[in-house]
Amino acid sequence: MTYTVAVAGASGYAGGEVLRLLAGHPDFEVTTVTASSNAGKPLALLQPHLRSYAHLILQETTPAVLAGHDVVFLALPHGASGAITAQLPDDVLVVDCGADHRLTDEAAWAKFYGGEFNEPWAYGVPELPAAGGKLRDRLIGATKIAAPGCNASSVSLAIAPGITAGLIDEDIVAVLAVGPSGAGKNLKVQYLGSELLGSANPYGVGGGHRHIPEIIQNLKLAGATDPKVSFTPVLVPMARGILATVTAPLKAGVTTQQVRDAWEGAYAGEAFVQLLPEGTWPRTADVLGANTALIGVTVDEAANRVVALIAVDNLVKGTAGAAVQSANIALGLPEGTALTTNGVAP
Amino acid sequence: MTYTVAVAGASGYAGGEVLRLLAGHPDFEVTTVTASSNAGKPLALLQPHLRSYAHLILQETTPAVLAGHDVVFLALPHGASGAITAQLPDDVLVVDCGADHRLTDEAAWAKFYGGEFNEPWAYGVPELPAAGGKLRDRLIGATKIAAPGCNASSVSLAIAPGITAGLIDEDIVAVLAVGPSGAGKNLKVQYLGSELLGSANPYGVGGGHRHIPEIIQNLKLAGATDPKVSFTPVLVPMARGILATVTAPLKAGVTTQQVRDAWEGAYAGEAFVQLLPEGTWPRTADVLGANTALIGVTVDEAANRVVALIAVDNLVKGTAGAAVQSANIALGLPEGTALTTNGVAP
Amino acid sequence: MTYTVAVAGASGYAGGEVLRLLAGHPDFEVTTVTASSNAGKPLALLQPHLRSYAHLILQETTPAVLAGHDVVFLALPHGASGAITAQLPDDVLVVDCGADHRLTDEAAWAKFYGGEFNEPWAYGVPELPAAGGKLRDRLIGATKIAAPGCNASSVSLAIAPGITAGLIDEDIVAVLAVGPSGAGKNLKVQYLGSELLGSANPYGVGGGHRHIPEIIQNLKLAGATDPKVSFTPVLVPMARGILATVTAPLKAGVTTQQVRDAWEGAYAGEAFVQLLPEGTWPRTADVLGANTALIGVTVDEAANRVVALIAVDNLVKGTAGAAVQSANIALGLPEGTALTTNGVAP
Amino acid sequence: MTYTVAVAGASGYAGGEVLRLLAGHPDFEVTTVTASSNAGKPLALLQPHLRSYAHLILQETTPAVLAGHDVVFLALPHGASGAITAQLPDDVLVVDCGADHRLTDEAAWAKFYGGEFNEPWAYGVPELPAAGGKLRDRLIGATKIAAPGCNASSVSLAIAPGITAGLIDEDIVAVLAVGPSGAGKNLKVQYLGSELLGSANPYGVGGGHRHIPEIIQNLKLAGATDPKVSFTPVLVPMARGILATVTAPLKAGVTTQQVRDAWEGAYAGEAFVQLLPEGTWPRTADVLGANTALIGVTVDEAANRVVALIAVDNLVKGTAGAAVQSANIALGLPEGTALTTNGVAP
Repeated sequence: MTYTVAVAGASGYAGGEVLRLLAGHPDFEVTTVTASSNAGKPLALLQPHLRSYAHLILQETTPAVLAGHDVVFLALPHGASGAITAQLPDDVLVVDCGADHRLTDEAAWAKFYGGEFNEPWAYGVPELPAAGGKLRDRLIGATKIAAPGCNASSVSLAIAPGITAGLIDEDIVAVLAVGPSGAGKNLKVQYLGSELLGSANPYGVGGGHRHIPEIIQNLKLAGATDPKVSFTPVLVPMARGILATVTAPLKAGVTTQQVRDAWEGAYAGEAFVQLLPEGTWPRTADVLGANTALIGVTVDEAANRVVALIAVDNLVKGTAGAAVQSANIALGLPEGTALTTNGVAP
Repeated sequence: MTYTVAVAGASGYAGGEVLRLLAGHPDFEVTTVTASSNAGKPLALLQPHLRSYAHLILQETTPAVLAGHDVVFLALPHGASGAITAQLPDDVLVVDCGADHRLTDEAAWAKFYGGEFNEPWAYGVPELPAAGGKLRDRLIGATKIAAPGCNASSVSLAIAPGITAGLIDEDIVAVLAVGPSGAGKNLKVQYLGSELLGSANPYGVGGGHRHIPEIIQNLKLAGATDPKVSFTPVLVPMARGILATVTAPLKAGVTTQQVRDAWEGAYAGEAFVQLLPEGTWPRTADVLGANTALIGVTVDEAANRVVALIAVDNLVKGTAGAAVQSANIALGLPEGTALTTNGVAP
Repeated sequence: MTYTVAVAGASGYAGGEVLRLLAGHPDFEVTTVTASSNAGKPLALLQPHLRSYAHLILQETTPAVLAGHDVVFLALPHGASGAITAQLPDDVLVVDCGADHRLTDEAAWAKFYGGEFNEPWAYGVPELPAAGGKLRDRLIGATKIAAPGCNASSVSLAIAPGITAGLIDEDIVAVLAVGPSGAGKNLKVQYLGSELLGSANPYGVGGGHRHIPEIIQNLKLAGATDPKVSFTPVLVPMARGILATVTAPLKAGVTTQQVRDAWEGAYAGEAFVQLLPEGTWPRTADVLGANTALIGVTVDEAANRVVALIAVDNLVKGTAGAAVQSANIALGLPEGTALTTNGVAP
Repeated sequence: MTYTVAVAGASGYAGGEVLRLLAGHPDFEVTTVTASSNAGKPLALLQPHLRSYAHLILQETTPAVLAGHDVVFLALPHGASGAITAQLPDDVLVVDCGADHRLTDEAAWAKFYGGEFNEPWAYGVPELPAAGGKLRDRLIGATKIAAPGCNASSVSLAIAPGITAGLIDEDIVAVLAVGPSGAGKNLKVQYLGSELLGSANPYGVGGGHRHIPEIIQNLKLAGATDPKVSFTPVLVPMARGILATVTAPLKAGVTTQQVRDAWEGAYAGEAFVQLLPEGTWPRTADVLGANTALIGVTVDEAANRVVALIAVDNLVKGTAGAAVQSANIALGLPEGTALTTNGVAP
C-alpha cells in the first residue's frame, strides 16, 4: 500500500530534509506540506532544492489540515506538537522531529526546556543498546515516535557500547564540531554567514545544552547508573555535519581488544551505524546526505581513555533520516527504504 | 537484465561519484573497480564515503581487467582512454569522463590539449539543442560516449537557447565560481585547503582554459556561426559546484518575453535542466549531489544584455551524472534511473 | 596633533573595521563609539575582536554625542547621515561609509535608492583616474568624504585604465565573487551561514544592484561617455573579499602591450592599487585585512577582450580602509597611516 | 638600533607569517629570505600577499647566507635547525619555529619525533606559569628561542592556571578544531581543499600527536606532577585558527569563584592572553591575524569539571607571533612591537 504523508514545518531545514528523503520513498506519498508564516507560498520558493515537490503549496499547520494522512512528520518549534497531536486520530503515525516527546524525566524537561511536559514517545534511534536489546524493538508498531536530538544521538551512539560492556567509567567528555543547520532558519547574528565563515564558535558551554539530559537518558538505557556528561558544541564552517569526539576513562585492566570487540559487537549487522577499522577516523563529508553514522574508536593508553569519534549528518541520521528510518520500522517496511549509506563526498 | 559494470579510475573524485550514483541503480551491478597507484587497496580506504562498495578491492586499470563487462566507465587522466578502448570489444558501452573524445576539431585539440587526437564520441549532454533536435538523439544506442567537461556543459546549457533562437550576438562572456573537486586529487599547492579556504582564486584567465573549444563546439551545434567566448573560472571555497554567469548582447528589438520563451521552450519537459521563474536565481547548494542544472535568465535592459545563470554540481550533472544519464539513454533505460533532481541543501 | 574621533555605527561590520584600523593610527584617538539598538552595551560584547577598545561603551548615535570630535566616521544605514551631518560643525571632518553622498546624479539616486537626495561629497577612491588627474586631488583638505561602495570601487579601479586610455569599448561585463560581510549584520535568511556555506548564490541580477550607477559615474570620471555595465554579484563562502572579473571589448588594433602599459601607467607609484605581473592573478586571501587592491589584466585575443581581475577586502579597501586613507589625505597625514599593504594569508 | 634579520623557510606558511609581522616592526629590517627548492624565485611569486617584501629574492638556506644577521628566524622542517645553528655565531638571536629545541625529555623526543635530540632552548610562551613566575623571565636576554607548537601552547595556556592553583585533577581532555595551515604547504591528499571544505576531519587520534609531550612538559612547568592528556585535533574548514576545548575534573570543594580567580590571576596584565567575562566564549575569527589568545572558563557543576576554551591564530600566537614576541623580549624591546591584539573579524 501507499501511505499518504503530511510534513508540518516544511519550510524549515528539518522539514525540508524529511521531504528530500521521502522523494525517494516508494511507499510514501507526500500530499500535504504546511508552514506557519510561509503558508500560502509555493514550497519551491522556500526549498528551491526540492525539485520533485515544486508543485506543492504550503498550507497552514493545523490539525484539520494534517488529519486524514496515514503518516505525519512534525518539524515544528519545541512545544508545538502536543496540541496538534491531541487532535489527530490515534492511529496516525506521528513522527516528531522536535524535542517534546524525547525526555522521560519531567524534572530534566523542566530544567532544560520548561513549559508543559509531554509524555515520552518511542525514541527514534533504533541501533541504541537498551536493556539487553536495542531501541529498534520499541519502534515496531509504534504510532508515536520522537526523532532524536542530533547531538544527543551522536554522542550516545559513539560511547554506548563502552557503557553496555562495562568497560568505561561514567565520566564522559564530548566535544562536537557542528554545522549551523541544526539551529534551523534562526535569524540571530550568531548564525549569520559572516560570523561563521572562517571561524570556530563554541556555544552552550558548561552544562547548559538541552541535549545533555537526552544523552544521560540514552546512556542509562545502555546501562549507565549515574553518568556525568561534559558537553561542548563548537560551530564550524560547514552547513551540515557533526563530528563528535567522545572520551571516557578506561576501567582498570580493560584491553584495546575488549574495546574493539564491544564496539564491533554493538553495531554488527547495522547498516546505518558502522565501525571503521582501527586507526581510521570518520569525517563528516563521508556521511553528507547519508543516514550513516561512522564511528572510530581506540584506546589512548597513556591517557588511559577510550576515544570514540562519530560523524553524522545532523539533518539525516541526526534528524530526518532517523525519522524516516523509524517510520519504516514502525510500519514494517524495510528499514532502509529511501535512505542511503553513501555520503556525498568530496 | 542486469548490466555488469567496471569503473576505471575509481579512486578519484569522478570515479567515486560514478560509483556513488551507480549504488542506487537497479540495472547496473558494479563488479570491478580499478586504479593505478592505488591498485591492491580496499576501495573503502580511498573512498570511505562509499559504504555500499566497502567490500571492493581496487584492481589495476588494464584492458584485460575491464573486458568482460557490459559497461565500462572511464575516469582517467586525459590521454589514457584511447589505448584501453581499442582493446575492449566493440559492443561494450564505454563512457569516458575524460576529455579524449569530446572535441571534433583536431586543431582545437592540438592547441588546447596536445598529444594524439582521438575520434569524437557521442557527447553526453542530452538536453543540448543541436540541429533542430537535441543531442539526446545521438546517444540512443551509442556504444561510445564522451561525458562533458563540467564547465563546458554548464556554460553551453545556460546560453544555448539564445543562440538557437537567434536572440543574441555570439559574443559570450562567462565567469564561473567553481569548487576545486573538478581538478581531481591534484597534489599542487594551489589546491590545498589553506590556499582555497576563505579565498576566491581565478585561474586559466585570458583564453587558455581547455573547456573553451568545447563550449564553442557546443554553441555551433546549437546554431552559432563563429562564437567568441570569454571564459574566466574562479575557484571559491566549496568542494563542489559551478555557478556560471553567462551574458551576451541582445539583438536589436528582442524582448524579455522572447528571451523567457526561448529558454522555456528549450528545456520544457526536461527533468534535469530546469528554468527558474523570472527573478529567481540558481544556487549551487540547490543542486548538490543532484543531476539537475538550474537556470535563471533575464534581460538587463540598461546594459542591453541577456544574463543567464546556471548552477550545477560539477561531479554530477557536470561529470558522473551526465555519464550515467547518457548510459541510461544509450541502453534504453529510463533516463533518470539512479539520478535525483533534488539537491542536498542547506 | 592628535585628532579626536567618533565612530557612529560602531556595532556593525563597517564601523568595527574602521575601529580595527584606527587602533593602529598614531594621530587619531577614538573617544566615542555609538550605536542605535545596542547603545549602552560594552563595545566588547558586539565586537569581541577589538581588544584594544574593550573599555568603550556604546552611546546613542546623536549629533550631540558626535559633535566635539575632530573626525567623525559614519557607518550607518543609508539615509541616516544627512540629518546628523547637518547638525555637526562645518569644520568637522565627516567620512560617510554609507551611500548617501556618493552619487552626483539625482535621477540615479531616485531610481536605485529613493528618498531624499543628498549632495555628493568628495569620493574616497584616491587612485581613480579623473579628468587627467586622480580623485586624490579632490580629497586634499576635504571636510566631507563619501567612502565608496565596495563593489563599485573594485569594478571601477579594475577597468578604468582601459577607459582612460581609450583602449576598450564602453560595454563592460562585471561578475563578482563576494563575501557576505558587505551586507552587514543583516538578519535575513539568505545571509545565514547555512545558506551560504558550501554554496554560490547570485543576487541582484539583471541591472538592479545599487552599485551600478556608482560604477557608471566613476567610469565617466575616467573618461567614458555612456558606459554600459552588466553587473552580477555572487555570494561565495568567505566572510570577506571581492574578486571581480571585469571584461570589455578591445578596440580595433589595440595591442596587449598597450593594455599592459595603460594599466601600469594608471597605478604606477600607488601603494594600495598594485598591478600583478602578466599571467598572474589576484586572490582575495592576498588582500585580507589589507588596504590593497590587486589587479591582473590580460588580453584574450580569441575573444577580442580585455580581462581585468581585481581582489579587494570589501571591508578595508572597499570601505573602512578607503575611509581612513581618504581621511589621511584630507588632513595632510601620510596617506598610508594605519593601513597595511600585506594581506593575512593563507 | 635596527637589527638585521634573515628568515629561513620564507616560502612556507610559518615563514611567511613571520615576514608579515616583521613588516610592521620598526626595529627589525629583513634583508634576507631563504628557501630550499624555491631558492632563486621572487618571494612575491610564493607569497603574493606580502606586498612590502615584493622586491626580495629567495636565496638558498645555508649557514653562510644566514650568518651576518643579528636575528635569524628559522621556519624549517623538523631536524633542519641543528646543523644550521651550529654554524652561526653564538650571539646571533636564533628563533626556531620548528620543534627541534622544544622538548627537554630525550625519551619523549625519541618516541614522538625520532632522530637526533637537540638541546632545549628558551620556550617562547612568555605568559606560561612556571615555578612561581612565568616563562617570560627565561626569555630575557636569550639568544636561542624555541617557538611553541601551536596546539601545545594553546592547550597549555588554557588549562595551566588550574594546575598552578591546584584546583583540578591532572586528567586533561583536549579536543581542538584546527585549520589546516598548521600543516604547512604539505602536498598530501588529506590537505586538499576538496577534502577539507564542508567537512570535519580528525587526525592523530589516540595519543600519537607530537604536541602531547610538549603539553605535558608545559603542565609540569606549571606545577603538575604526572599529567595525563587526551588530545584530539579535528581539521575544520577554516584556513587558520585553533579552538581548543580543554576540560579537567574539579578537585573536591573547589568553587566557581576560585576557578575564575585562578584564571584571572594567571593572566592579569597580559596583553596577549586575555580572559573573557564569565559566560562568553572565544571564537577564532576574533583572533585572526592577532597575537591574542582569548580564553573562556567555567565550571560545569553537574559534570564536576572545569571547561576552558581558548582561541588562537595558529600562525600568529601559535607560531610566528610567539616568535616575534619572544624575540622582542630577548632583545629588550617592548614586548608587543609589531603585534596586534585585534583580530580581523568578521
